[in-house]
Amino acid sequence: MARIHNFNAGPAAMPLEVIEKARAELPDLGGIGMSVMEISHRSKEFQSIVDAAEAGIRRLMKVPEDHVILFLQGGASLQFAMLPMNLRRAGRSADYVDTGNWATRALKEARITGAVNVAWSGKEDHYARIPKPGELALLPDAEYVHICSNETIGGIRWTRFPETKAPLVVDMSSDILSRDIDIAPLGAVYAGAQKNLGPSGLAVVILRRDLAERVPETVPLFLRYSTHIADGSLYNTPNTWAIYMLKLTCEWLEARGGVAAMERENERKAAVLYGVLDSSAFWRSPVEVESRSIMNVVWRLGSEELEARFIAEAKAAGMVGLKGHRSVGGIRASIYNAVPTASVEALAEFMREFERKNG
Amino acid sequence: MARIHNFNAGPAAMPLEVIEKARAELPDLGGIGMSVMEISHRSKEFQSIVDAAEAGIRRLMKVPEDHVILFLQGGASLQFAMLPMNLRRAGRSADYVDTGNWATRALKEARITGAVNVAWSGKEDHYARIPKPGELALLPDAEYVHICSNETIGGIRWTRFPETKAPLVVDMSSDILSRDIDIAPLGAVYAGAQKNLGPSGLAVVILRRDLAERVPETVPLFLRYSTHIADGSLYNTPNTWAIYMLKLTCEWLEARGGVAAMERENERKAAVLYGVLDSSAFWRSPVEVESRSIMNVVWRLGSEELEARFIAEAKAAGMVGLKGHRSVGGIRASIYNAVPTASVEALAEFMREFERKNG
Repeated sequence: MARIHNFNAGPAAMPLEVIEKARAELPDLGGIGMSVMEISHRSKEFQSIVDAAEAGIRRLMKVPEDHVILFLQGGASLQFAMLPMNLRRAGRSADYVDTGNWATRALKEARITGAVNVAWSGKEDHYARIPKPGELALLPDAEYVHICSNETIGGIRWTRFPETKAPLVVDMSSDILSRDIDIAPLGAVYAGAQKNLGPSGLAVVILRRDLAERVPETVPLFLRYSTHIADGSLYNTPNTWAIYMLKLTCEWLEARGGVAAMERENERKAAVLYGVLDSSAFWRSPVEVESRSIMNVVWRLGSEELEARFIAEAKAAGMVGLKGHRSVGGIRASIYNAVPTASVEALAEFMREFERKNG
Repeated sequence: MARIHNFNAGPAAMPLEVIEKARAELPDLGGIGMSVMEISHRSKEFQSIVDAAEAGIRRLMKVPEDHVILFLQGGASLQFAMLPMNLRRAGRSADYVDTGNWATRALKEARITGAVNVAWSGKEDHYARIPKPGELALLPDAEYVHICSNETIGGIRWTRFPETKAPLVVDMSSDILSRDIDIAPLGAVYAGAQKNLGPSGLAVVILRRDLAERVPETVPLFLRYSTHIADGSLYNTPNTWAIYMLKLTCEWLEARGGVAAMERENERKAAVLYGVLDSSAFWRSPVEVESRSIMNVVWRLGSEELEARFIAEAKAAGMVGLKGHRSVGGIRASIYNAVPTASVEALAEFMREFERKNG
């Protein structure tokens, strides 16, 4: 079977070893005569899976004991709604930093249920950069400060997180487990699974335990973090398949040396592509150099026709997912943890060849 | 590989053919060089999967065109919260019929955000039966009437749904696709997937289109049915794996003759077990005969010690998931669509043998 070079933005490439392991455990998980999808979420077999997934995340991200780890459904999009419902008390406001499409979606949802302060917006700059520390107009009494650590569409990332008085809440959907982040000073981290964690339909939420106590009594039980904390993510039937795949992904990551090793590999992979972009005026990166994402590398060519030809010829050469998001156009290569260095090198070689023919 | 006899209440047995098909399409879905978990939810490949799943549900359940079909996350538990948030306007109330654990969870969640009328409760009768038509104390101006069509813990079901002036909303998590139901007169049907539809982490919602227009502007975007209707269940990244498995399950059902054929088989399977229960005083069914579920068959033995021995010996004989819910004890066999008749016959044979040895 020929694996394709998969540069999809999400759902995205998963480690082949993880898929092969899951395949080998269908339809029989470790000799129990059933697949992982057919056992109770309250069975000892599944409890050991959810425990292993949680322990894997805790070790890989060095999550301190005063932060809980939750496995919820609804992806990051439900978190956009749950965060303000749980963490912003009546009459209070929260700071949102608008760095692009995902930050905008988070703040749009937060506005429905209460007050929001937009502490900075990159909209007029076409979201080409992350703000400098002095640029944030933070409230003196915000309930929390929300940022999106990596914007998949703009291709920018917070290389360093801002220092804030209020708890910092970070949407890390597109770069969780891709780089070493100190969780201890953060109020919350959340991520949809479908880029670096596993299949879609799962959100990992890491939350400082005391922040769950703020929730008003008017919030539905299912939408309270406290409900899911009390039942160890088993208040209702969770996405058991996705938690199982996350457990396998954590094992794969640990076998490869953990997050620090992965970060070095990701930096190398990104450097290969940025190296090509910086090598000639044939390529144009629309992103400020200091804000460059190492997960989503975006670029433009001289014309939209040339970009369309690039994407079509790349596809014919076995490289998919390179079309930029429909809202901005251009080209984008998403190179999450599971995208092999060999795929990135194949793309770089294709780029150099494409420039020779069209430059 | 020996498949076990799987009587789990949920997540539950899935058709072996469905799992084998999914296995065969890992890690390569139809020659595209990626698995179904690694493609964009906005790709043409995935669109054809979600379209096929929707068409399958529409054909199998004969869903009329004025009802939409949605694939959401959060299972039935999120629907317990979303339904009243969307369908019950400010100052209005809704009728809830309390037939057991699941009906109770739905009404408990509805109470958090507004008024609820408990139109009938079986609590004092230990949830041993479904109410008769004349027993429901319905409001003259309820926004909707909520019932749970089949209670997995009590082992009772609505053989016929009540006639109501307000739209009837039915939690069919444990018997959707198991019997022929006329959707046309219903306001909404919803179901967590992990019993008759596929793996956990997915809810199917069938909603009369006009009911989605009631939603107040204070409800978060993600929690509005109108949001998901507008984007064909692709407002955010859905649980793509579960939708794919649901598509395969629909194909499996249609190949076996659809819901009518499945209903006949389910009636036969249930009759095999109730036949044993009715054959001697060794067994005791705590459920009113007219309210008997054909999905979850519950029974008691003379003592808890004898019940524990039954469960242990059944497990040793390759039959799992027979322990009654921890809130009620006893024995329960869940015999959803995917539980083969052969498994039910093996259980009946084991029961007769157990009675011979212990009766």
